[in-house]
Amino acid sequence: MREDLIISNVISALKSVLKHDENKPIALSQPWFNGNEWKYVKSCIDEGWVSSSGEYVDRFEANLAEFTGVKHAVAVVNGTAALHISLLLSGVKQGDEVLIPALTFVAGANAICYLKAVPHFIDSDDKSLGVDANKLCSYLKDTAYMKGNVCYNKKTQRPIRAVIAVHTFGHPADLDALLEVCRKFNLELIEDCAQGLGSYYKNIHVGNFGKVSAFSFNGNKIITTGGGGAVVTNSLEVAKIAKHITKTAKIPHPWFFIHDSIGYNYRMPNINAALGCAQLENIEKFLKNKRALAKKYQEAFENLEGVSFFKEPEYAKSNYWLNTIILNEEYSFIRDLLLVKTNSQKIGTRPPWMLLNKLPMFRDCPSMDLKTSEYLEKSIINIPSSTFLGEGYVKE
Amino acid sequence: MREDLIISNVISALKSVLKHDENKPIALSQPWFNGNEWKYVKSCIDEGWVSSSGEYVDRFEANLAEFTGVKHAVAVVNGTAALHISLLLSGVKQGDEVLIPALTFVAGANAICYLKAVPHFIDSDDKSLGVDANKLCSYLKDTAYMKGNVCYNKKTQRPIRAVIAVHTFGHPADLDALLEVCRKFNLELIEDCAQGLGSYYKNIHVGNFGKVSAFSFNGNKIITTGGGGAVVTNSLEVAKIAKHITKTAKIPHPWFFIHDSIGYNYRMPNINAALGCAQLENIEKFLKNKRALAKKYQEAFENLEGVSFFKEPEYAKSNYWLNTIILNEEYSFIRDLLLVKTNSQKIGTRPPWMLLNKLPMFRDCPSMDLKTSEYLEKSIINIPSSTFLGEGYVKE
Ligand SMILES: Cc1ncc(COP(=O)(O)O)c(C=O)c1O
Ligand SMILES: Cc1ncc(COP(=O)(O)O)c(C=O)c1O
Repeated sequence: MREDLIISNVISALKSVLKHDENKPIALSQPWFNGNEWKYVKSCIDEGWVSSSGEYVDRFEANLAEFTGVKHAVAVVNGTAALHISLLLSGVKQGDEVLIPALTFVAGANAICYLKAVPHFIDSDDKSLGVDANKLCSYLKDTAYMKGNVCYNKKTQRPIRAVIAVHTFGHPADLDALLEVCRKFNLELIEDCAQGLGSYYKNIHVGNFGKVSAFSFNGNKIITTGGGGAVVTNSLEVAKIAKHITKTAKIPHPWFFIHDSIGYNYRMPNINAALGCAQLENIEKFLKNKRALAKKYQEAFENLEGVSFFKEPEYAKSNYWLNTIILNEEYSFIRDLLLVKTNSQKIGTRPPWMLLNKLPMFRDCPSMDLKTSEYLEKSIINIPSSTFLGEGYVKE
Repeated sequence: MREDLIISNVISALKSVLKHDENKPIALSQPWFNGNEWKYVKSCIDEGWVSSSGEYVDRFEANLAEFTGVKHAVAVVNGTAALHISLLLSGVKQGDEVLIPALTFVAGANAICYLKAVPHFIDSDDKSLGVDANKLCSYLKDTAYMKGNVCYNKKTQRPIRAVIAVHTFGHPADLDALLEVCRKFNLELIEDCAQGLGSYYKNIHVGNFGKVSAFSFNGNKIITTGGGGAVVTNSLEVAKIAKHITKTAKIPHPWFFIHDSIGYNYRMPNINAALGCAQLENIEKFLKNKRALAKKYQEAFENLEGVSFFKEPEYAKSNYWLNTIILNEEYSFIRDLLLVKTNSQKIGTRPPWMLLNKLPMFRDCPSMDLKTSEYLEKSIINIPSSTFLGEGYVKE
């Protein structure tokens, strides 16, 4: 049968790239430590600076700002915390709606709820896997109205305050088109760059387009700090507030404990930042490997029937964080079988997230028609993408 | 003048205990790494398990449960997160009030606000430095009424749902008396054990009395994980929910991403837990040192005029997390001068927190009369207490 052929072709293509030894599982995305990780972490322990003060946090922030070209970076405990603070600093308040793709990891929608705001789900396009800006624009024309400077949802009468653009699997969303929509409806743009470290939109690193953007350094990301994230912004004022409220809003003083607003303990510990400093020193190598791996995949999947390898949008240079193949619509029914077969052969693959509007806690949230997301949800498969798999580097 | 004499007596007493070399600053509370810290952390890096999965998190939880005698422990990113989850699992909802001492670190009051509930400030007593249970009982008799099973604030008409008992500087609050008040007014007891690891109330470790309790492993605590905390409970059901929602409420599956409620990314990373496992192996030594140091302080401050060393309540065996001296009321005006003089001589001392009801964001919250807290706020000085200062151990 056709389906069997497609499955065996996909598995052969994967094996041809991965040179897979059946006894050794290949994870979807694992970190790689082959730089100064030991040295820096050990120095934290030796000097007793593992916690909220210490030089590595500042250094990591400076290095991250330098690498991304965003003026200010504030290191936090993880990407979810970074999104929470980004939303807060974008002025999202209880009872507001925030536009967010249905096709993304749950963190952003959760963070919206931490503020007692409401996620409002929007569709993605199949060129970027990110927000479909054109469709969003038409949708808002129908669904929303402006009163003063504020965009309101006609149905719910709630203010629509912001839109989260996710750089899905590392591929930049079409930011210019999105910024245009944001201008039209006076929405704040928040970039969810959790998956986007090392990705460029028209030669500018992602995270430079929204007022505030969020990164993640979880273990499965391009670089890791164990758990970690960052809020980045080009506004000094916003950066100052971000740093202040992620450090419990304490007014600096050698011994007095006075806090001037509701604060969070979201600061990244120094020992985690130490790991991050070492990882960031190797980012160029990591990215080179990842793009080389993507190229091999692209070649291996060229001309296969029923399936295609997802390529970066033409405006972008992507980190290819998670390599992605997409089944043609008529073959999406074989997706789960492919997942079972590959994983049982120890090749780590996974489907995308269940669309957020289908999760029980978000079922009653507003949503546009999600045709493309529905298709992508059932047709996408992520394939092994660890940093050390490309360019002939071998992890011992 | 009398004041000058008191100041010089205090400084002499400190120096006699600390054998202080003027060139070497003595911090208030620093961690001590002299066990398997590096070995365990190195193994995380070598094996690539630094993030949310890994054996150390489970091991740390098991060891913490064993040490405290609480059945279940869930390791989280910090004590603030632990309090947030404890409040959530105690049923605190938007618009509820939660009783909390005015004399404590800001984290608990912030966590109450994360749930859009309202802190309601209560007084402490000078025997325990924790909640004054008698005063609370009379206050609630006047201020609250029961309707059905729920305690309401007469003035605000809001439900009063829970009380946070803080074990201040490691000294257990009077838990039996508090539990009595909780029974009477159907309040949930939450123990803030951030400062209480290794402290016992009538021979039972703190954290066993509330439905849910919170620990912190920040760098200044008895043991540290860099940043870290734990939710502990004797209820299997509560523990399961705590673990689930601190791991983004994801339904376990090798590749599907389905989440069944609003969740948090609060899980402690493995590399931080590795540090914690090593620290916990030395806890008995740390506690022995800390109690030995407290004993020396007690002797040095015996019979000094105008000031006394704070001793554990008679029902308690305390960890003496932060050693504390208290100025007599008539001398509290010299407190700030003492802080300046000691710190300028590189002896780390600090005042307690500004009373929470005075902070701008909490100024309009309900509060009882806070007479004792007011006195303690201006009269307490914490003095150097690092684990390695006692018992003749010397940190190299
Ligand atoms: C798109 C997206 N946003 C946010 C996050 C949250 O980051 P973290 O896991 O560090 O909290 C992730 C990470 O998994 C993600 O993929
Ligand atoms: C009484 C009290 N509660 C909560 C916390 C918060 O813990 P963490 O700093 O780990 O968030 C602290 C720590 O400083 C504390 O002293």
